[in-house]
Parts: sequence; structure tokens; C-alpha cells
Amino acid sequence: MKRRIRMGMVGGGPGAFIGSVHRMAARLDGKIDLVCGAFSSDQSKSQAMASELFLPESRCYKNYGEMIEFESDLPADERMDCVAIVTPNITHYDIAMKALEYGFHVICEKPMTFTVEQARKLAAKVEETGLAFALTHNYTGYPMVKQARAMIKAGELGEVRKIVAEYPQGWLGDAIEDSSKQAGWRVDPARAGISCCMGDIGSHAENLTEYVTGLKITELCADLTAFVPGRTLDDDGNVLIRLSNGARGVLYASQISVGEENGLTLRVYGTRGAIEWRQECPETLIVKRNDQPRQLLRRNWAGTGPEVAAASRIPAGHPEGFIEAFANIYSQFADAVWAKIDGIKDFAPDFPTVEDGLRGMAFIEHVVRSSKSEQKWIKFEV
Amino acid sequence: MKRRIRMGMVGGGPGAFIGSVHRMAARLDGKIDLVCGAFSSDQSKSQAMASELFLPESRCYKNYGEMIEFESDLPADERMDCVAIVTPNITHYDIAMKALEYGFHVICEKPMTFTVEQARKLAAKVEETGLAFALTHNYTGYPMVKQARAMIKAGELGEVRKIVAEYPQGWLGDAIEDSSKQAGWRVDPARAGISCCMGDIGSHAENLTEYVTGLKITELCADLTAFVPGRTLDDDGNVLIRLSNGARGVLYASQISVGEENGLTLRVYGTRGAIEWRQECPETLIVKRNDQPRQLLRRNWAGTGPEVAAASRIPAGHPEGFIEAFANIYSQFADAVWAKIDGIKDFAPDFPTVEDGLRGMAFIEHVVRSSKSEQKWIKFEV
Amino acid sequence: MKRRIRMGMVGGGPGAFIGSVHRMAARLDGKIDLVCGAFSSDQSKSQAMASELFLPESRCYKNYGEMIEFESDLPADERMDCVAIVTPNITHYDIAMKALEYGFHVICEKPMTFTVEQARKLAAKVEETGLAFALTHNYTGYPMVKQARAMIKAGELGEVRKIVAEYPQGWLGDAIEDSSKQAGWRVDPARAGISCCMGDIGSHAENLTEYVTGLKITELCADLTAFVPGRTLDDDGNVLIRLSNGARGVLYASQISVGEENGLTLRVYGTRGAIEWRQECPETLIVKRNDQPRQLLRRNWAGTGPEVAAASRIPAGHPEGFIEAFANIYSQFADAVWAKIDGIKDFAPDFPTVEDGLRGMAFIEHVVRSSKSEQKWIKFEV
Amino acid sequence: MKRRIRMGMVGGGPGAFIGSVHRMAARLDGKIDLVCGAFSSDQSKSQAMASELFLPESRCYKNYGEMIEFESDLPADERMDCVAIVTPNITHYDIAMKALEYGFHVICEKPMTFTVEQARKLAAKVEETGLAFALTHNYTGYPMVKQARAMIKAGELGEVRKIVAEYPQGWLGDAIEDSSKQAGWRVDPARAGISCCMGDIGSHAENLTEYVTGLKITELCADLTAFVPGRTLDDDGNVLIRLSNGARGVLYASQISVGEENGLTLRVYGTRGAIEWRQECPETLIVKRNDQPRQLLRRNWAGTGPEVAAASRIPAGHPEGFIEAFANIYSQFADAVWAKIDGIKDFAPDFPTVEDGLRGMAFIEHVVRSSKSEQKWIKFEV
Repeated sequence: MKRRIRMGMVGGGPGAFIGSVHRMAARLDGKIDLVCGAFSSDQSKSQAMASELFLPESRCYKNYGEMIEFESDLPADERMDCVAIVTPNITHYDIAMKALEYGFHVICEKPMTFTVEQARKLAAKVEETGLAFALTHNYTGYPMVKQARAMIKAGELGEVRKIVAEYPQGWLGDAIEDSSKQAGWRVDPARAGISCCMGDIGSHAENLTEYVTGLKITELCADLTAFVPGRTLDDDGNVLIRLSNGARGVLYASQISVGEENGLTLRVYGTRGAIEWRQECPETLIVKRNDQPRQLLRRNWAGTGPEVAAASRIPAGHPEGFIEAFANIYSQFADAVWAKIDGIKDFAPDFPTVEDGLRGMAFIEHVVRSSKSEQKWIKFEV
Repeated sequence: MKRRIRMGMVGGGPGAFIGSVHRMAARLDGKIDLVCGAFSSDQSKSQAMASELFLPESRCYKNYGEMIEFESDLPADERMDCVAIVTPNITHYDIAMKALEYGFHVICEKPMTFTVEQARKLAAKVEETGLAFALTHNYTGYPMVKQARAMIKAGELGEVRKIVAEYPQGWLGDAIEDSSKQAGWRVDPARAGISCCMGDIGSHAENLTEYVTGLKITELCADLTAFVPGRTLDDDGNVLIRLSNGARGVLYASQISVGEENGLTLRVYGTRGAIEWRQECPETLIVKRNDQPRQLLRRNWAGTGPEVAAASRIPAGHPEGFIEAFANIYSQFADAVWAKIDGIKDFAPDFPTVEDGLRGMAFIEHVVRSSKSEQKWIKFEV
Repeated sequence: MKRRIRMGMVGGGPGAFIGSVHRMAARLDGKIDLVCGAFSSDQSKSQAMASELFLPESRCYKNYGEMIEFESDLPADERMDCVAIVTPNITHYDIAMKALEYGFHVICEKPMTFTVEQARKLAAKVEETGLAFALTHNYTGYPMVKQARAMIKAGELGEVRKIVAEYPQGWLGDAIEDSSKQAGWRVDPARAGISCCMGDIGSHAENLTEYVTGLKITELCADLTAFVPGRTLDDDGNVLIRLSNGARGVLYASQISVGEENGLTLRVYGTRGAIEWRQECPETLIVKRNDQPRQLLRRNWAGTGPEVAAASRIPAGHPEGFIEAFANIYSQFADAVWAKIDGIKDFAPDFPTVEDGLRGMAFIEHVVRSSKSEQKWIKFEV
Repeated sequence: MKRRIRMGMVGGGPGAFIGSVHRMAARLDGKIDLVCGAFSSDQSKSQAMASELFLPESRCYKNYGEMIEFESDLPADERMDCVAIVTPNITHYDIAMKALEYGFHVICEKPMTFTVEQARKLAAKVEETGLAFALTHNYTGYPMVKQARAMIKAGELGEVRKIVAEYPQGWLGDAIEDSSKQAGWRVDPARAGISCCMGDIGSHAENLTEYVTGLKITELCADLTAFVPGRTLDDDGNVLIRLSNGARGVLYASQISVGEENGLTLRVYGTRGAIEWRQECPETLIVKRNDQPRQLLRRNWAGTGPEVAAASRIPAGHPEGFIEAFANIYSQFADAVWAKIDGIKDFAPDFPTVEDGLRGMAFIEHVVRSSKSEQKWIKFEV
């Protein structure tokens, strides 16, 4: 008989924004129970979080290793099924590898790993184990993003020619890294890796572009900048892109665009029509054509398809948002775990995979390399 | 030691929109466990829902009476703490009264009862029992609605002069009542009472107006219409209103405004400034003044106060929506139940109360009476 | 051979907003030459304006009487053809009557006269003389307003059921009448007549409603208020309306809605679709339906008809605005004068007529009467 | 004594969009009289236009040469003062040079010339003659563009870091060049020169960027494409830009972005604040900051400065648009001509100059060169 999926969490201690989001997303549809965690390297903080979550002390672990090992020894009807990884990205690889080795399904924050090499190995491990692995490139969880993708797949825009992918934020416009923990690790090469802005949010723009268009970026030319004095990693970047079908475009990400909140935006122009989607107004997909009036497609209103209905919980006009989109990843992940438990082979989940994660890591590596190069075009190969 | 609140649900069987919303709202913050239910008068449907919710068969009851009685006999550490009522409004009163009589806290859909008289008795019962009672006038759960209220309370708009409260929907523009269960009961006097549109959504506009302004409607003049052939209850209504401080305004609700989704909107103009809030774009509060540029206050961005932070889960630019606003009611309700359990007397929850429910019922009664009257102004008294 | 129409102007001295608008509107299409004027009762101001306009001294008159009489004595190839009246409304009637008596065509600011009785006499005079008479209810000059009207006429919205006509402004929110000449006459019964807000802008909302829908207001129930201390005329008013086909709605106008600029807005809901038009964003007509995605019709883009093309000067995406809409009235007026000169009988100009002006005056009189009455519904009869 | 400026026009025959715009812009403020023209190389068309404009036959010339020569022989109180050039750009240089040689002031459509070399010579000629020369980069005529420029000049955004300049149009998305005269010359190297899209509209984006920021583009990296089969000139282009103060950005222009009307947009991000301006919504300037709510500055509302008032004709809320912005160039040009007539030396007109035109021509040349190059960065030098 079907039962709730049992999840353990690594990271997500008190004050951690993304850990809290993962927990809400996991809760929303009632498919998943959080049963254990290693929430912080600081044991008292971890315990405080467990207590806030009404977890028994026995399921609050010192670290991910203890959690994975101990849980794997629990009886089958108590043991966690999967691990959610919401730690800084330098630790993702080790945690994910160990979880997979012990047979646990994994849902992991992005960027997936610290290096492309790790990403490649992790992809191989997922392939080898056959376990479910989801990456929370959450913006593809929005229903109207799925509508855009379905329309392009169905040829409603004709052949794609031009893409404008933008991701401006303003919160790193000042040197807040000393006072903000969230900022601190992102601008620190030791913890963030080779990129700040492109790694943190540029990769979302890349993932969204490829998800919606079904195309791959094949060449790029990047200009990354560290604007705020004292930074060594990029806090802004502009990239010319070329795609697999000959389409061209612009992709930029910025964390010094002061006054911008979280302005991920995608415009795709085809031979017959265009779409525009804005994350801050996620319930609307603007459709533009030369031979028709502009349309505002709205989630679950006339004109949207089954992809939207499947990814929606409530009627049009009742705004769904970021948490619901995130929960769509979790919901699909739970379905994938159930499919694995039930031995169903052909379940095709609609969530970002380890392959997406690998492309994301490679994208970061390529734009950083391009920015340092005098060569105009860098081939994007994974 | 603190523990999750245990909730039973009456109504919310398969396909019921609002029951599903209540469950998501109850889940989101991890404060409440749904432990039992009487989801449908059709036992197989009720059981199907229980099963979908991973509830044990033993906690799926035939009806609310059985549920309340049986649960009250359970040991204290198993017994539900509260009841969520999500049935058609004709049944709210009986269920709520019984739940209160058996000592259970109640969270109830609006409109609160079927008649004003019932509402009055229910208010007395809540007063008498001292139990927590929340009404899900969910739109007051939005953070930016709380911002508007706080600004007006702090005098930032000066004295309020003019109010425009609108609630257009279009889904009842055609006679869909035979094919749509959601429409069927709303247009049926036997199940919906004396009003369709004003009862269903006009009362939200009334509640929002009074919540945000802190004023009371004191006089009104209504023109209700049943536009769609065959209907006897209003599917549209326009109301002139006058408020306790001398402010005046317009309040209208419509379910035949075709093409409108769920357009609840409130504009309040004071002597020094004005606010505008649109439910379909709930993260923004527009602030207008004669002597300053127009401002777009955004949830959790600069310019919003502690009320917003307290009612938010994620940063600005990461859209929260309808479910999160609804969950704010549930979260406050859980806090109120905890306060009751802990014997805390002075907890002042920020959710719509039985008094709001009584005003709502009285509002419906008054606008229906006014619409039939040749007298211009009807005093609004509760 | 066709030649430019020669126009004289009464009013529109230095600093007069509306006189300046009339001159720009008259100039824009090159059909009209301003050849003379009596711009101000202050002769030096009048002469200053004439000089600014490069008019010869001989064509700058002391007052409208002198202008009309003197011009009528000029040779046919010099004499003005028509008079533009842009004075305070208390003087419109006398000027218009005299101009018509001397055979000059007239284009006149609204409200048309000071009393309904005058309006009736003026209408009779226009009928009697057969001269062209245009009233500058300029908002009907917008191309997308004409699109809305054409769509409704063609039945694209089905039967009209509900109307929401709004006209909020904020500039009279404070008692600026002592320092602002524009405000001074509007709030003064001696110069403005029986109404400030409803006369000044409510009548635009009434005219727009009837123009777009092709319906007539047949009953109304009004609540007018003078909010700002010291005022005796309304600076705000809310009106319930019923229309000739059974449609109902709300019409409000306000000059104390602080922070609002010039927010004339019209929403019309029919059985099959709805339109929304906002004067501050005049190039877009929003079309809403239950069975289709929302459409943004844009001036001269796909989906707009010949009415739009005829009233446009430039392509879509090149914003036209208030002056262009105003100029559409002037352009049609010039065409009407040419038609009169050429003896063409069946020219049907698309500008507000003396009959519209009479309805406007009657509307003002009815809402003022209704507001003072205890009777709920007042029949609107002209 | 001051008099109206007398203007002759070259180009702008029947059906020519931009000629008509120039005439409306010249008329709007009543400073300029169109007194003669050579409207078309087809004499009957030219005469038809003259007749439509109520010009005497004697002032309708066969060609620009005849016009310039004949007019220069007229008496001083009849002779035109200036020439408006609205022909295809291949002819601009010759006409402008001849006009200047004969002592006529010039107002010229952009792009200014056919080659950079011509631009350089023309700049020298203007310098030499001391005559007024205006280039109709009309988008800088918008009041809110001037507000943006004034704010940046005053340091209100801090130091500029990032620029996003966009100019998407969709009208050349299909191969309409055979049926559309407007399209035909633009895609034809013989008539348009080395670029279609970048020359036609990219240069506007460049001009707007430099006008608003006060910075110069110093390096660029371009990727131009001819998407529509059969075209040899670019119909789309993406450019990375670097500016004189170290700011970086993206500039793109496109005529194959189907569904876009005329979407010129500029975003400028500084260390302390940002502005966003959209040509299709030109009355609003969005101001964004990290430490304040978002502001919508509106033309002539609180918060805008004297630059806006000087470039406005009517109050806030009464939309001004494209023609008014264009007329601001003409109005300043007329003022400049008056200053020249009066011998005033220090008049500093606010319109695009021959130097702007030279930079525009150089920009086109540089992006075309960059697009063909394997070198990443091309220095932008004039």
C-alpha cells in the first residue's frame, strides 16, 4: 500500500532560507514526511531545528555520514527513503555520493557540485545506481514555464530564432558580505567555487532557456565583472549565446542591479510567435505574434494546456508562486521515488536531472573561461 | 512540550476545491497534522479521500457527529484538537456548534452560517466556551493587506475619505449550474441562502474593506441583479456605502463579469495618501500621494513593516500567493490553539473571528434587503 | 478649391491649459488656421497671446462680441469660418448662440452650457441654423475607444450587462482653490454651476459610457460629497446606474482621490466578452473572455479595425496620446465644416454633438438632484 | 520682431511615414511654417502632397537642388530658413551639404549619412558654417528620458555600472520586402548601406544610452544575424558593450522579434539606484533602489524636475507620446534657428547634433566590423 515518502535533510538549520523552502515544498502536497535530519554542523542548532520540526531527538544526527549510516540500519518501515541536500555547494558532491551509495534517493540544491569533474562522476553514479536524483532548478517548476515549453515543442512559435534570458538581482550591490551569511559564502571562492553570480543565478537562466526551448547552447561569449570592490568572483555577467538550431541570444545575470528583486525573465522569439515569462509575475505567459493581438495566457484559464493543469493546485486568479513551483519538483520527485519503490520503469519525471546539473556546472565553467579569453566564441561542450 | 496541533476535517471530499486548499494551508508551516475526517456524506468517497491522505481507516468517519463524539472519547494524546469545517454553508452552524460543545476549537469556511440568527448564536457560543474560532476570510491573510492596514492605522494616509472595493469574477457568466457542482449549490437558495454573489464574494470585499480601514460600514444602498436567465439569486451587485467616519465609497461584486478571474481589489483614499491592492498581483501595494511619486511597495522589500515580515516566508521577488495567505490564517489559528492549550490569556490572533463572521452575515442580509427596497439608504447594524 | 479652415478663438489666454490644448489639436493635422481671437478679458493678456501666436494686432479682439461682429464683416476669403469656445462654462451659451446667429460654425469645450435649459435652446439653435457644432468630449477621440465601440456595435461582447465607469483625480484633495485659478472657478457655484466634480469630469464618464456602449443611462442613484472643508459643490460622487437595455453599473468620479492623475477608465461586460480601457494607457484595449486568453489589442496592431486606422496617425508602438485624441475631434470638425462649405449633406462626423452636450448637462442635473433625494432611483430623462 | 520659422522639406511624399511625422512635429507648437517642398522624385506625387498641404504650386519643387537654389533667391521675408531632410539615408549627405552651403539650417532624419566619411565631412561643414543642424534621434525628446538623464547627471544613481539597452521590433520577421516599401529600402544594401537593423534602430539604442548616461561606449563585441532567408543585411544583433567609466552592458536590436511593436527600452543601474524607461509607456520612469520602495515617476507629477516641465505641454495623466517627443526636437530646433537669426551665441539647444550623428554612423560601422571579426573586443573610436 502506498505510503508517504520519508525524507532526511542535510543542512537547513535555523535561519537558512533555502532549507526552509525545501521543507515547505516537501510538505505542501502531503506526499512526503521529513523524518530525520543533520541540519547544522553546530549540534545545538541542529537540535533546535529538529525540535522546531517536532522530530524526535533520535532522528537528529551529528552529520550527514552518521545520518546515512544510521538510517540505513533502521527497519524498512521506519528508514528514510531519500535525502534532501541543502548545504553550501562545496559539500553537495560528497553527501550525494554517499547517499546514493547507501541506496537513498537524492534531491539536491543547485549548483549541483563544486566542479564539473564532480558533476560528471555524480551523473555516472546516478546512472549506475538507478536511483532517483532531482536537482532543484525550481524555476522550471512554474506551470506557465511548462506552458511555454509545451507551446514551443508543439511548434506554435515556429522555429526559434532569438532568446533573451535575464536574471537581475540587486542585493549584492553593496559589500554586504561581512554582515550577511547568505552573501558571505557566495562571494568566497573557497565556498562558492569559480563564480558567484553566474553560478548562483546565471545557471538558472541557462537551465530555463534550455528547458523551455528544448535547444542547447552551443557557443558563448561572456563578459563577467566583479563590480563591488574587494570581490574576486563575478557579481555581474553578460553573455552572447548561440544555440543548437542556429538561434542566437543574450543571457545575462547580475547581482548588482540595485533595486531588482529576483527578476528572472525569458523571452523566446520564433518565426511565427514569441513568448515572454517573468518570474515575479509567474502566473502570466505573454504570447506575441505579428498577425494577432497580444495574449496574456493565465494559469488554468482558457488557452492553457494539460501541462499547466497538472502542475497547478488551484484555479486561475488565485495566485500560485515560488513555493508551489518548488513543490512541483518535490511532488514529481515523490512520484519518482514511488515509481522506484513500485519497480515502475518507464516513469518519466518532469524535474531537473543530474544531466541538467552537469550542463549547469559546465555552463559556469565555460562562461568563466570565456570571460578570461580574448577568443570571441567558446564552444559549449559537456 | 509543544507538539503539532491535531485537526479533523468535515467536508473536503474528492474534487472539492476549498477542502484541498484548507489542507495545503494547514500543512504548509508544519504546525498542524490532519488526523481524521468526515470528508463526504458518500462513505466511499470519504474513504477514498482518507486513503489519499494516508489516514487510517479508523479515523475516517461517517459524519461529523460520529467524528466529534468518537474523537472526544480518544485519549488526550491522540484526540483531535480542532475541527476544520469546509462543507456548504447551510451545514456550518450545526457542525460548529457541536464541535464547540464537545470542546473542540473550530476553523470554518465563510460565509459563517446560513442566517444572521445562527451567526449571533454561534458568536455567543464561542464567547461562552472560550474556544478558538477562526473564519477563513483568507484575503486578509495576504502580507501586503496587512501592510495597508498598518499604514492606515498609523495615519499614513490621513483620514480615510473614499473606498472602492471590487470583486469581479466571470465564471458564472453562463448558466453552468447544471454541469458544475461548484456553481450548482451557489445559485440554489436551498443551499446557498438568500444570496449567491454577495454571499460568496461580496462578503470578502466587505471584510477586506473593514479589516484594512479599521472602519465600519454604517449605511448602504444596493442594486443586486440575477442576470443569467433562470437564476433567482443575485449573480451581480453594486452597492453604495458610507462608513463610520463619514467616508464613502463603492463596493461591487460580480460573477458575470466575463473574462475576470478573481479580481478582488481595494482602493482606499485618505486626506494624505492612498493605497491600492489587487489580489491577482498580491505582492505589490501601490501607494499614491499628491506630493510624491507613486510607490510600489513590495513584500519584504524596503518600505514594508514588521507585519509583512511576520506574515511572509520568503524574500521579496519570490512570489507568495493565495495558499500562503490562507496558511497565514491557519498558522495564526494554530498559535491560538497552542495559546489555549498553554492557558495563555492575552494572545491576540490576527485572523477573522466569529464577530467578523457575524458582520459578514449581516452584510449579506442588509444588501439583499436594500436591493429590494425603494428606500435609498439602509442603516447597517449588527 | 479646398483651403484651410479659418478659426477664431474665445478664451485661452496666457496660462490657460485647455486653450493651449485646443490650439495644438487644431494645428496638428494642418487643416485649420487660427486667424483671430479674443483670448482674455484683460486686453494686455489677450494681446500678449496674439503676439505669441504670431497673429496680427488687428485680429486680436476685445471680446467675443466684437470678434464675431467684426469678422462677419470681413471679405469671404479672410473671414473666420468657425469659433472655438474655451472660456469658463458660464459664458459658453452666450458665445455659442451669437456665433451661430452670425453663421459661424462652433467647437465648444464641455460642459456645454451652464444650465440644462440653455443646452436645450442651444440644441434648437444648431438644428435651426444647420451649422456644424462639436463638443470636445475629447476622450471619445481615442482610437481604442472607437475600437471598443465598434466591437460592441458588432456584437462581439454579446449583450452588455455590466458597466464600471471610473474617473478618479486627486488634485482637489486639498483646498487649493485660493492659490489655483484652475481650481478656483471649478469649486465656485457662481462660475461652475451646480456641480464641481460631476460637472467637470463625471460628465466625461457619462459621455464615454454612452458612446462606447451605444446605450443610454435611464435611471440613477447618486451620492455626492463635498469632502474638503469649505466647499459647497461636490468634489466626489458615486452613482449606481441602469441602462436602456437592462444593463447595470457603477459610475464614479472624484477629485479628492489623492495620488490619482487622470484615471478615466471604462469596463464593459457583455454576455460573451468584456473590454477594459484606461485613459492613462490609451493605446491598449484589454479584451477579456471566459473561453479565450486575455487579449491586449493595441492601436494599429493586428486585431484592430478601420475605425482605429482612421483615427491614427502613426504605427503601433509609437504612442499617441491626449493631444492626438483631441485632434481627432478637431479633424472631424474641420471635415464637417468643409462638408458644410461644399454643401455635402450626408456627412456624418464622428465627434460629440450638441445632443451629447444636452445629455451631459441633464446628467449633471440628475445626479445632483438624486444625491439630495431620499428616493432611491431617479429616472434619467432629457 | 519674432516670426514663424519658414521650412522647406525634402522627401515626405504621399504614404511616407516619417515625412508625415516631421510635419506634425513641426506644426504642433506653432513655431514653424512649412512653406515649400520637394516631396517626391515623382513630380505628380510631389504636387499632390503640396496640394494636400495647401502649398502654392510655385513652392513645390522638382528636386532639392532646385528648391535650395530657387529659395535662396527669394526675398528675405519669403525665403525658407531651414530644410527638413526626410529622404532615404543614401541621399542625406548631398542634400544637407547643399543646404548648408546655401546658408540654410538643417534638420535631418537619422542615420545621418550613408558612410562614416560623409558624416565626418558633414560635421566639419556644420562647424564651418555655424548653422543649426539637428538630427531627429527623436527618442531623446521624451520628457522622462530627460528626467533620467538629469537624475544621472545629478548623481542620484551613484556611479553607473550596468546598462541594458533593448530595441526589439517584429515587423521584419517575414520577408515582406517585396510588398512593403518601408521594408524594401531597409534590407537593400544599395539604399540602406552596411546594416539594416543596427542602422535603423540599433543606432537609436546607442544614442539613447549615451544621451541618458552621459557616458561613451568604448568597446564592443557584436553578433549580427540576417535571419530571414534572402537577406544580406542584419535583421537582428546582440552587442556586449563597455563604457568610458568602466560600466558594462548589453545592447541589442532586432526586427525579427515577432510580436514586438517598437520596444525601445533602457535600464541603467548605478551604485545607488537604477532607472528603467520603456518607449511604449513613455510617461513613466521607474526608479529602483535597494533601500527604498520602487517609484514610478510620472511626467509632470511630484518628483520630476524642470527638464520634464520644459519638455511637456500638458499635465500628468494626459498622455503625451511619440509626436510630442518628436516635436520637442523641432521646438528646440526652431529656438536654435531663432537664436541664430538674433545672433545669440550661447544658446545650447537640447537636440541631437551632428556629433551625435557621427557617433551613430561610427557605431554602425563598428558593430558590423565586430560581427565579422574573430577578435572579441573592438575599440569604439570616432
